[in-house]
This record gives sequence, C-alpha cells and structure tokens, in this order.
Amino acid sequence: MEKLVLAADLGGTNFRIAVVNSGGKIVARDQQNTPNRPQPDELADFIVDQASSLIHKAGGQVYVFGLSAPAVIDQEAGSVTASPNIPALNGLRLAELIQTKIGLPTILENDANAAAVGERWLGALAGVNNGICVTLGTGVGGGIILDGKLYTGANGTAGEIGHICVEPFGVPCECGSRGCVEQYASATAIIRMAEEESGGGESGSGERMTAESIYDSALGGDVAATQIFQTAGFYLGIALGGVVNMLNPEVISIGGGVAQAWDLFIEETRRQIKLRAFQQPAERVKLVRSRLGDNAGILGAARLALDLEA
Amino acid sequence: MEKLVLAADLGGTNFRIAVVNSGGKIVARDQQNTPNRPQPDELADFIVDQASSLIHKAGGQVYVFGLSAPAVIDQEAGSVTASPNIPALNGLRLAELIQTKIGLPTILENDANAAAVGERWLGALAGVNNGICVTLGTGVGGGIILDGKLYTGANGTAGEIGHICVEPFGVPCECGSRGCVEQYASATAIIRMAEEESGGGESGSGERMTAESIYDSALGGDVAATQIFQTAGFYLGIALGGVVNMLNPEVISIGGGVAQAWDLFIEETRRQIKLRAFQQPAERVKLVRSRLGDNAGILGAARLALDLEA
Repeated sequence: MEKLVLAADLGGTNFRIAVVNSGGKIVARDQQNTPNRPQPDELADFIVDQASSLIHKAGGQVYVFGLSAPAVIDQEAGSVTASPNIPALNGLRLAELIQTKIGLPTILENDANAAAVGERWLGALAGVNNGICVTLGTGVGGGIILDGKLYTGANGTAGEIGHICVEPFGVPCECGSRGCVEQYASATAIIRMAEEESGGGESGSGERMTAESIYDSALGGDVAATQIFQTAGFYLGIALGGVVNMLNPEVISIGGGVAQAWDLFIEETRRQIKLRAFQQPAERVKLVRSRLGDNAGILGAARLALDLEA
Repeated sequence: MEKLVLAADLGGTNFRIAVVNSGGKIVARDQQNTPNRPQPDELADFIVDQASSLIHKAGGQVYVFGLSAPAVIDQEAGSVTASPNIPALNGLRLAELIQTKIGLPTILENDANAAAVGERWLGALAGVNNGICVTLGTGVGGGIILDGKLYTGANGTAGEIGHICVEPFGVPCECGSRGCVEQYASATAIIRMAEEESGGGESGSGERMTAESIYDSALGGDVAATQIFQTAGFYLGIALGGVVNMLNPEVISIGGGVAQAWDLFIEETRRQIKLRAFQQPAERVKLVRSRLGDNAGILGAARLALDLEA
C-alpha cells in the first residue's frame, strides 16, 4: 500500500489540510476557515476533527502528521513560544496534544520553515545545498536550508530573517524591536507606507488600501506607490546583503503575496545586495521567485512528516 | 611516532608558525614580521622558507599544513578573492602554490574562520554545536560553527559578520557598503569615533590615539570615551540580535583587541540583543569572551589541517 502522510497548514485566516504521498502528490485535500479567536482546546479539537475527517476520506492509510503554524516554536521545549496571529497557540504543547488525541506521530514546524522545506523538496530550492526561503506576506518569514536540510538552531527558532534590523531607530515592530525588515518589506508595511504617504487610511475611491491596490496604483504609473515598492526592495536588499555575507547561499527564493510585485522591487533588492555584500557571494547568489505558492507550507509539513518516520 | 601538523597564521603585521600535535599542544613555534608589501611570489617563498625551517627543527614528522590569512577565500575556486591588508594575496592560489613548493597537503582558511575552529576545538566554543566567533580587531571578523563544524557556504566565504549593515546610510566601509558593524565596533572605528569627538587625530598629550588610549581614558572616567564603547556595544548588539534571530546559536564568543574593553561595551550589547531578538533565542545565547587570544588562528589552522588528513 502506498505510504501517505497527513499535512496541514494552520494560518491566521485559512486552515489547509491534505493527504500527501511520498512523491509530494496531494491525493486528498480540504480547506476551512481557521476558528476565530479559539480557546487552545477548541483549536486542538478543530485540527483533530479536520484531520480525522480527511484520514477517513483517504481510507486510513496515513501514518504520520506534519503541521505548519505561524508561530515561534521551541522544539527543544516542545512548545509554542510566540504566535501573534493565533494567540491560542501561545505556550501550547500543540504537537504533543494532537498526537495524544489523534494517535499519530505529529511534528509541528514554523510556517516559514515549513515553506522552506517545501521549496527545497519540490520548488525553487530543489537540489540546493545552502538556500534561503523568504516569505513576504502579512509579516516577513524566513527559513534556512543548510547542507540540504532545514536549519533550526539551538531551540528550533532559527530563520527569523524578517527580524533582522535594517534601521536601528526605525519603525517599532510587534516583536519588541525597531526597524526590523518586516516593517519595510511586508504587505503590512507597504500599506503603512502608503497610508503615511496619503496622510490617511483610504485610497482616492474611499476604500481601505490593500497591498494589491497599491500594486495596481504603481502599475498605473503612480509615482508614490512605485517608490513604496522601491523602498521595500531597498530594505529587503539590506537584510539579504547581510544574509549573503553571513551565509553565502546559492539561492534565495522569495514568495508570499508581496512577491506578486516582483518587477517593482527586485532590481533595487539586487542592487543593494551587489553594493553591500562581498563580490563572490553576491555574484553567486541567485534571487528567484518561490514556486509552490500556497502549497509550500503543506508540502513542507508533509516532507517533515515523511522524514520523521524515516 | 606522534602525528604532527604545521600551522601558520599570516597577519598583516605578524607571521606566526607552529608545529602542533593532535591534542592541540604547540611543540615548536616561531614568529616573524610579515614582509612589507611583498610581491606574490616573494610572500609564498617567505612562507615556504619559514615552514621548511620549522619542519627542520621539528624533525620532519609534519605531514600537512594549515594556514590562516586575513582574506576572503573562494574555496570553490581555490583562490583568494579579497585581501585588503595583504594585497599580494589578491587573486592568488596560495594553498596550491605552497603545496607545490613545500610538498605537503595545504589548506588555507580565512583568519576569523580559523579562529572559530580554534575556539571550537580548545576554547570558548568547545563542545558547542551552534556557535559564533566574533573578532573585534582592526576589522570585525566572524566565523560560524554549525553542527559542530565550520560553516563556509557555497563559495567558502561565509561568516562575514563584520559586514552586516547596521546603519543603511552610515559610515562608508572599505568593502564598498555603508554602515557595516565593522565601522562601529572595530578598533579602527573606535579611533575614528574618538577623533570625530575630539575634532582631530590627537589626544591631549599630542600623541595619536589608539584603541588602548581611548580605553584608558574611559577607565579614567572620560565620558566621551565611555560613550564610544557604548556606541560600539550598541551596534554590535544590533548585528548580533539579527544573528541570534537568524541562527539561534548557543554561544557567541567575542575576542580580538577590543574585547579587552569587555566591561565597557558588553552590557549594552546584551541589552540590544534582549530588546531586538526573540525571547527564546535571546535567553538561550551565551555571550562569552574568546579564550585562545593570539593562538586562536594557529590552533584553528592546525585543527583544519588535522581534519584534512582524516
């Protein structure tokens, strides 16, 4: 019988779950809204219900469960240490809890790390020994692949590229610091910069701005909107220049919603890396778009689940 | 017969060479001034002569040669790609050249990387899986130990922690960038900041300032001198906060001449890491002083030579 794993991507808005085979093919999938402000037990029960339901559909052949979540996870302690988007996760020993309820070995990984593993398996980092995966979404996530494997550090919290400081006295960040690259290159940052520019929170038509609407304005020739993406590219380049000097990676893959605006920021990012990093590693690194889109997390979780069993 | 290796540390000012046993004991050593502005061939001949002389003293039992140099080394290409302090090294295939002349397998490594290997073997990073070695000297050097081994990246240039940007529009750096931490936390930077403060290049007594004289002024209660070490500690903390978020290391060891002023900067460095890095990795990381001093490079080169043979 084919070896299958269960994989899920718990996001602030959506919960995606799939049964995946050892080749990375999604053989069954489901998607739900993530419960709104759930209690910890409620959230765990929700995940277990969804998992059981999909296992039932898949015929019960599933033997291990990989779960990705928007959280800082202390793998050493086995618990979530920070999860601004899903506060119910804070302090929760989620993997252990689900494993007990569902009876499957369960592995929990940070969403950006899971995305890096997914891209390494089947996407933009395939075959890469030393690579970086950056996700420009609501925040800026990062995952580090070294020697072909996810690098997680002493506690399992490594990879937080979004919280490299690029302006020492810059914009306050939810993490407690200031001037993190997340405050300049995330979708949230792009909206903030556009609101600062226009002196308020509304576009000309009276609707609240989104990163998409700012992108559309830039495409339509709006100079201020274009400049915002340049600024995002500038600061992203400063952070990645440091990453290139430190880690000398072969490839940096960039995904997430903001990556849709690739042509509006990437030249400035490349320019900063070239200016700021040493010549050899700057020439060596390839900046590419991530390839798995919304499936990166779920496929990475599946790969981690497969490796757990191996 | 005891297994011995030859190890040398080529610096801008001093050339140190030693015969080292497999336990890290230096059984013979010598030190010379590095030739002043040598031609490439001249430099290689100097190293070979010194090596032959020490091998002769040691009785010819040496079977491999490890060499540390202040240079960016493209290990993939086998050549030095940048060496501001010893321009003769630029573009040189030094390891190959020496190996041919001396008839011993020769390995060349960046001095900060070699120091990291030395500290991992016999110093402040002993037993550490994931650690960082920072050297605050004329410049700011760095070496990264991951999974117990030196991490060198795709080309072998990884570890350039001194060229993490901490001020995007900051002080121009010799590397071509601006605002590198090297421009705020090296001995050179401390002298520059003191000269800016005093409006000239001389101390009250008419002598040119050194990092030591500024340190002495701070110890003597000079507020401006004290503030300079605080500034160095501030920017070092910003760079290391990013390193902690990215790599979640167990230990960061800090050495080099500026580390002599430990008590004047380290609290500010710790404070910035605590403010700027995520809680778990910030609590986990230990900041300690390097332990091998001037022997770090030579012992690291010896360890790399031993590993080359293994």
